[in-house]
Amino acid sequence: MKTMGLDKLYLVNPRSFPDKEAERRAAGAWEILHAAVVCTSLDEALCGTSLAAAVTARPRDLSHEVFDARQGAREVLGYARGGPVALVFGNETAGLTTAEASKCQIFVNIPANPEYSSLNLASAVQVMVYELRMALPDVSSFSPQPGLAATFDDIELLYRHLERLAISSGFLNLKEPKRFEQRMRRLFARARLEKEEVNMLRGILSALEK
Amino acid sequence: MKTMGLDKLYLVNPRSFPDKEAERRAAGAWEILHAAVVCTSLDEALCGTSLAAAVTARPRDLSHEVFDARQGAREVLGYARGGPVALVFGNETAGLTTAEASKCQIFVNIPANPEYSSLNLASAVQVMVYELRMALPDVSSFSPQPGLAATFDDIELLYRHLERLAISSGFLNLKEPKRFEQRMRRLFARARLEKEEVNMLRGILSALEK
Repeated sequence: MKTMGLDKLYLVNPRSFPDKEAERRAAGAWEILHAAVVCTSLDEALCGTSLAAAVTARPRDLSHEVFDARQGAREVLGYARGGPVALVFGNETAGLTTAEASKCQIFVNIPANPEYSSLNLASAVQVMVYELRMALPDVSSFSPQPGLAATFDDIELLYRHLERLAISSGFLNLKEPKRFEQRMRRLFARARLEKEEVNMLRGILSALEK
Repeated sequence: MKTMGLDKLYLVNPRSFPDKEAERRAAGAWEILHAAVVCTSLDEALCGTSLAAAVTARPRDLSHEVFDARQGAREVLGYARGGPVALVFGNETAGLTTAEASKCQIFVNIPANPEYSSLNLASAVQVMVYELRMALPDVSSFSPQPGLAATFDDIELLYRHLERLAISSGFLNLKEPKRFEQRMRRLFARARLEKEEVNMLRGILSALEK
C-alpha cells in the first residue's frame, strides 16, 4: 500500500492484531499498520463509503458489474472525488464470501492465467494499488455521475426497509428471501444509487408502510 | 509468474537451491520451480535473449532507455515475437548492481510513491508479469454475462405501477410528480433492468398494494 501511496487500512476481524509477523513484514510502513482500523464487521468498515469494490477471482452467480483491474481502478478513483471509496479483499485462504462481495457495488477481477488464476492476497493488493496509482492521471478525464453518491450505510438502511416491507406485505412468503435480497442488492449496486434517490425510495416505502 | 502464465525461471547464483522455503511458497507452481535453470552468471542466464529489461527502482547514471512498467511490458512483448526476452530482477536486499543492469538493453521502472518507492521482489515480479499479461491483445477485455434484459414495455409498466402507488400512498402529494418520475427513470435506466428484476419489483409493489 505504501509503495503506491495509500495509507488507510481497515481490518475486519483479524485473527491476530497487533501481530509480530505483521510488524516484521511491514518494514518501513509501520505507521500504516499502527493506524489500521480494526472492525468487527464488513458493514462497520464500509460505513460512509460511496463506492466499494470487491476484488474477487471467482465468478459469481448473481454477478454485479465486473471490471478488470485497470478499468476497476479508474472507476474507484473516479468515485473517490466524491467521497471515501474502498477496495475489499478476502482473506488468504477463502477469499470473500458471496454475502461479503454482494455488499459492494462493483466486482473487480485481476486478469490471470485461467489454469492458475488465484493470486495470493499480497499480490492482489499490490496489483490493485499499482493500478490505482497508474490511473491517477486518467482520472481528470473521468466523468462520474453528477449526483451525490449514497453511502454504504444509506443503502443498507434501504435494503432493511425493503426487506421489512417485503415480509410485512406477504411478498416474501412466496419467494425465497435470500434470493430476493441478492437480486435487490445486485440491481441497486449496478445503479450506483445517489443520496437523493435513496431518500425518494425510502420516502415511498414509508408512505406505503402506513 | 504462474498466475500470469509465465513459466521460464532462471536463477543466478541462488543462496540456496533447491530450497524448502521456496518449495513451501510455490504451492501449486512447483513445476516452474523444479524446471528453474540455475546459472553461475547473469551472462549465462541472458545468453540467446534478444531483449533484456532490467527492472530497477533506482535511477542510474547510465543512459539506457527507461520505460515505466506498462510501456516496458509492451516493449518486451514486442521483442518476444522475434526471440527469447528476459525481465531481470535483483535480489531482495540489494537489487541489481549497476554492472548487472547495464547488461540489459532497457530499464523498466515501476511507478511508485516517491517517499517509499522500493517494492519487495515478489511484488515487483507480480506487477511486471501482470503488465505482460495485460499487454497481450484481448486479455484485458472482460465481458460479464448479463441476465435477460427487460423490454421497454416491461419497464414502462413498472413506472406506471410505481406512479400509481406513489399517488395512492400519498407520497406524491408531498413531492413534485414529474421530478419523481424523472428520478426513477434515471435510476432504473442506469441499472439496465433485467426481466426477472422487473418481475420482482412489480411483485412486491402488488403485495404492498393489497
